[in-house]
Amino acid sequence: MKPQTKNLKPKPEMTSFIHVSYSEMKDTFLSILKQFNFSEEKAAGCAEIFATNSLEGVYTHGVNRFPRFVQYIRDGYVKVDTVAELKGSAGCIEQWNGNLGPGPINAMVCTDRAMEIAARNGMGCVALANTNHWMRGGYYGWHAARKGFVFIGWTNTLANMPAWGGVDNKLGNNPLVMAVPYQHDAIVLDMAMSQYSYGSLELYSLRNEKLPVPGGFDVQGNLSQDPSAILNSRNVLPVGYWKGAGLSLLLDILATILSGGLSTSKVSEFTAEHALSQVFVAIDISKFDHYSSIGRSIQMIIDDYHASVPIDEAKPVRFPGENIQKIRDKNLSAGIPVSEKVWKEIQSLR
Amino acid sequence: MKPQTKNLKPKPEMTSFIHVSYSEMKDTFLSILKQFNFSEEKAAGCAEIFATNSLEGVYTHGVNRFPRFVQYIRDGYVKVDTVAELKGSAGCIEQWNGNLGPGPINAMVCTDRAMEIAARNGMGCVALANTNHWMRGGYYGWHAARKGFVFIGWTNTLANMPAWGGVDNKLGNNPLVMAVPYQHDAIVLDMAMSQYSYGSLELYSLRNEKLPVPGGFDVQGNLSQDPSAILNSRNVLPVGYWKGAGLSLLLDILATILSGGLSTSKVSEFTAEHALSQVFVAIDISKFDHYSSIGRSIQMIIDDYHASVPIDEAKPVRFPGENIQKIRDKNLSAGIPVSEKVWKEIQSLR
Repeated sequence: MKPQTKNLKPKPEMTSFIHVSYSEMKDTFLSILKQFNFSEEKAAGCAEIFATNSLEGVYTHGVNRFPRFVQYIRDGYVKVDTVAELKGSAGCIEQWNGNLGPGPINAMVCTDRAMEIAARNGMGCVALANTNHWMRGGYYGWHAARKGFVFIGWTNTLANMPAWGGVDNKLGNNPLVMAVPYQHDAIVLDMAMSQYSYGSLELYSLRNEKLPVPGGFDVQGNLSQDPSAILNSRNVLPVGYWKGAGLSLLLDILATILSGGLSTSKVSEFTAEHALSQVFVAIDISKFDHYSSIGRSIQMIIDDYHASVPIDEAKPVRFPGENIQKIRDKNLSAGIPVSEKVWKEIQSLR
Repeated sequence: MKPQTKNLKPKPEMTSFIHVSYSEMKDTFLSILKQFNFSEEKAAGCAEIFATNSLEGVYTHGVNRFPRFVQYIRDGYVKVDTVAELKGSAGCIEQWNGNLGPGPINAMVCTDRAMEIAARNGMGCVALANTNHWMRGGYYGWHAARKGFVFIGWTNTLANMPAWGGVDNKLGNNPLVMAVPYQHDAIVLDMAMSQYSYGSLELYSLRNEKLPVPGGFDVQGNLSQDPSAILNSRNVLPVGYWKGAGLSLLLDILATILSGGLSTSKVSEFTAEHALSQVFVAIDISKFDHYSSIGRSIQMIIDDYHASVPIDEAKPVRFPGENIQKIRDKNLSAGIPVSEKVWKEIQSLR
């Protein structure tokens, strides 16, 4: 159970970080989840998602989030022994009930089901009510796109952002995912409707760094680039001001009415974020008459995009998800960086 | 043919504006389009859309845009005598060829077709290649939502925005529309991926007003709130910086590969913006088992949203499209405000 620390750089700001191998991290998650009465399959599924999210650099919704996930199991928000089930269907769109099961498992079931419907009907949609946090939405995008599907998905959250022109939090940051197959991998956009996720704000704050662009309001109501001031006010900025606020509202309405589940407003009545609504859309492009030209079309778009003249020559333009392979490779060889404190906390769960 | 000017306020900044009634505006558009060999039906459809967009306050994609639409007909970019036709299908997603017909007509045909597919399959998607500017995407959202459907649609455009970290324009502002039925009307989000549309920038510039938030970069590469400086550099800001840039890229890739049409990159090789790719998704919520609860769900979301504590008490929080009814009523009674210059130009087309 010794963390793999040989690649630990002794820089002062890094002293509290250790490196843990992917397999050790996954095994650790697995054994902990099995203690909490997860079935072998569910424990393996969750461990895989939490470890992969960490491997691919999304620590906020991987290893750093794992203790809270366990706490939610303890608190009864996440039900270990339920499965998502079909509750209604209207052709190629189905309603599922997540029965408050583990969010990542429910999300995988619904992603796979949307792909199944798409394989029969060209396009498939599963709207999921009564589920839990899916952690990193991009995971399901990568999963579907690597199998050759176009994927669009989103989730609502509790209210963590004010309406445009409002003071109190009424909107969720409702992450939206769009994914397309690319070469042997995928292009995956995974964006919350806040300019920065709370996870990112916490990371900037932890590093004592100023935000590159304004990320919210301070308690005085001024636009701010100070992550701590924004974490303090809990008043984050929607992407594109009124535009992202509007998009967040529509994503919430859609997730709610398509699934028959709870809205951001209703979810916010609970003390802890659970019973969320989500949407999973898959499109089977292999069914298209022009399928053989699609790879070339995407390549032409990406080639032109990459031909951008960069503002800073050291920073070439990148498409969403382009860095993932590099991060994955680095973390595979050097181990996944984890704060010593977080890893200790996780160890204590065993 | 006398413009209805009785409501013209003699404020100095308004002296160049007149007011034209909805029916006069529509008749004017109709008679001009018929001169250009539009069929009666197509002329009526286009005139209705251009006039309604103006009536509902979207002048930039209504009356102000009409002369350019006519110029595109003259230049042969918009073909008057073609119709959109099915070119491929894969279950509930179809590919249509717009044959370079008038954008608003093609968009209406595809919106209606998506609704038709949805009425049979719960959800329907039409991906349209080779079409022209749809003007105001929200129009199709209102149309579908007023008939009880959920609508999601988007279009690509020519490159008018740099990739994040890039200098030259590689991305379109690719407007995205989401609409849901609400009471006897609809909630409609209609957002371009740039913080401001070129239309809005031109309006601010015309009024000599500073932008409320940064809208792009000046020629020196500094973030700017000066609409003229941004119009000069043609370097507009994506909503949410890197996030809107990523969303724009994904919307373009999706429109291109779902329709088998041209990408922003390819469209940008032409001297004028045409041969665009668009996506129209409709969902028939009346097919859902929980249909009877949907109106109540939306109402609860909107009630909670409206209960926001406003920053400025004089400015209550509004949902996307909430002002439309008021603008429509005002313009119906007072006439649609049009710059005298634009109206003269339109008169000269007769």
